[in-house]
Amino acid sequence: MSLEKVADFLTQHDNYDILTHAYPDGDTLGSGYALCLALQQIGKNARVITTNLPGDFEFLLDGVKKQSFDAQTVVSVDIASEQLLGCNKERYSGRIDLCVDHHEINRVEAAVKHVESDAAANCEILYRLFRLMKLDITKQIANCLYTGISTDTGCFRYTNTTAETLRIAADLLELGADTEYINKVMFETKTKKKIALEREIYDTIEYCCGDKCAIIFVTLEMKKKLNVSDDELEGLASIPRQIEGVLVGITMRERDEGGFKVSVRSDSHVNAAEFCARFGGGGHAAAAGCTVKGSLDEAKAKLISEIEDFI
Amino acid sequence: MSLEKVADFLTQHDNYDILTHAYPDGDTLGSGYALCLALQQIGKNARVITTNLPGDFEFLLDGVKKQSFDAQTVVSVDIASEQLLGCNKERYSGRIDLCVDHHEINRVEAAVKHVESDAAANCEILYRLFRLMKLDITKQIANCLYTGISTDTGCFRYTNTTAETLRIAADLLELGADTEYINKVMFETKTKKKIALEREIYDTIEYCCGDKCAIIFVTLEMKKKLNVSDDELEGLASIPRQIEGVLVGITMRERDEGGFKVSVRSDSHVNAAEFCARFGGGGHAAAAGCTVKGSLDEAKAKLISEIEDFI
Repeated sequence: MSLEKVADFLTQHDNYDILTHAYPDGDTLGSGYALCLALQQIGKNARVITTNLPGDFEFLLDGVKKQSFDAQTVVSVDIASEQLLGCNKERYSGRIDLCVDHHEINRVEAAVKHVESDAAANCEILYRLFRLMKLDITKQIANCLYTGISTDTGCFRYTNTTAETLRIAADLLELGADTEYINKVMFETKTKKKIALEREIYDTIEYCCGDKCAIIFVTLEMKKKLNVSDDELEGLASIPRQIEGVLVGITMRERDEGGFKVSVRSDSHVNAAEFCARFGGGGHAAAAGCTVKGSLDEAKAKLISEIEDFI
Repeated sequence: MSLEKVADFLTQHDNYDILTHAYPDGDTLGSGYALCLALQQIGKNARVITTNLPGDFEFLLDGVKKQSFDAQTVVSVDIASEQLLGCNKERYSGRIDLCVDHHEINRVEAAVKHVESDAAANCEILYRLFRLMKLDITKQIANCLYTGISTDTGCFRYTNTTAETLRIAADLLELGADTEYINKVMFETKTKKKIALEREIYDTIEYCCGDKCAIIFVTLEMKKKLNVSDDELEGLASIPRQIEGVLVGITMRERDEGGFKVSVRSDSHVNAAEFCARFGGGGHAAAAGCTVKGSLDEAKAKLISEIEDFI
């Protein structure tokens, strides 16, 4: 459906629950709070539904009114599949009316669906939507959109960054986005815990495919020892891919319920989404995920065997 | 002098030696090779004079013709002072005809001088110059300019990044700049050695001043064990400053001749140059350096005692 249809839908409905995905990142949260601010600006009731809000993202709440209402309309932002709703899945599954997303493969069922897989971030789509709706893109909205765009592009380093991405970022900077604060919090600050975690992670690096693939892992035991939460593990996935000569970086995170959550990051020679599809997962060409069952050694052996076959 | 004057100067002269600064970075080299390609495009003889060309930057040479000629015109790019010419200082001192720079304080003496201190990178100025001259900004020139702009802004993370910076980057991407390659080499790649080094460094972190200051060190023994050169230690200084809550990051590197080379990075609450002045050093408010004599324990104790007094 066209962006015009999305604009029409938003003006014609009211009382919005805006859904973000579990293990929330800057793009889903930036999208959620930007859309919430935009809807409140045009006189609608709206709230953002999250599984949790990591501390780094609390500034996104600035200017968002707490409204009390019965939800009538459910919108999902940056959500590729209802499986990603986490603890909100049961409540909202099958109830999504509007889906706005930028994932290559989107499995959400919604009456109105707008997916642009060439947008670097879902917040890029929202920026164009707000322009189309002639909304006032306030400093707060600009902060939310810049957060989504900068985090989903690794601050414009990743290959999903287009000329349009950079021009939207330029507009947002002029609209007052506090890029100094956002860049510092998102890209320049490391907690002491994170440093301790990286140190441990460095000891787990294992290479395969003639050093073209690097694998790291975090076990429940490591998490307990370092006292880190799942949120604090975000960002680890970029570590193995950064190593000189590595085309595919695989990050394994042991799950409470057993097995491993696997994040795959790759350069343009290797399609991460296709690789993850072998394990029933999905995502983008350069960044995808899946789940692998078994013990650490078993799961790692499966991944290594598949990646050696795949490359 | 206006950019128009610079354009006139370049078309009216010939046989260019283009000077870059010692310990060359992406902006001076990007500026140098971009200008060389531009001058060769309009039929001039030109070459870039460097003290050395680090391996990561060899791709900037693509498309540059090797020309043999007697130099008649000397241009300096991204050079704040003739002191920064390194081993080329003796040969070119007092001989600079045109100076194009973006440093706040520029001490170069030249007949034609164009300094824009609000430009995030010198390459930004050259982009506007080439547009003004209606040159064909080829893929190779775009690569050089993007290298300068992205490296001087930490890939658009630093506060010098403006809306114009981002828009020029967008243009360069459309002109064919290989941002995937450049970002990967400049910002995403860590050698295995560097990872091993960071791991060791993490074990040396010590906090003082109620965790407002963090200190790391590299001893000669560590360098030997990891087989790293001084070049490979560049960039370490940003590690302690990145830690959450840390206002001052101090990096100590043991010197062959004894004592420690100390790099201090601070946020706007603490003046690094003033602190380093206590040890006879100096620099900028946010980045300064000095030398401290003594054993590791002695030097560290001196630094801790002074910083506790200073903060």
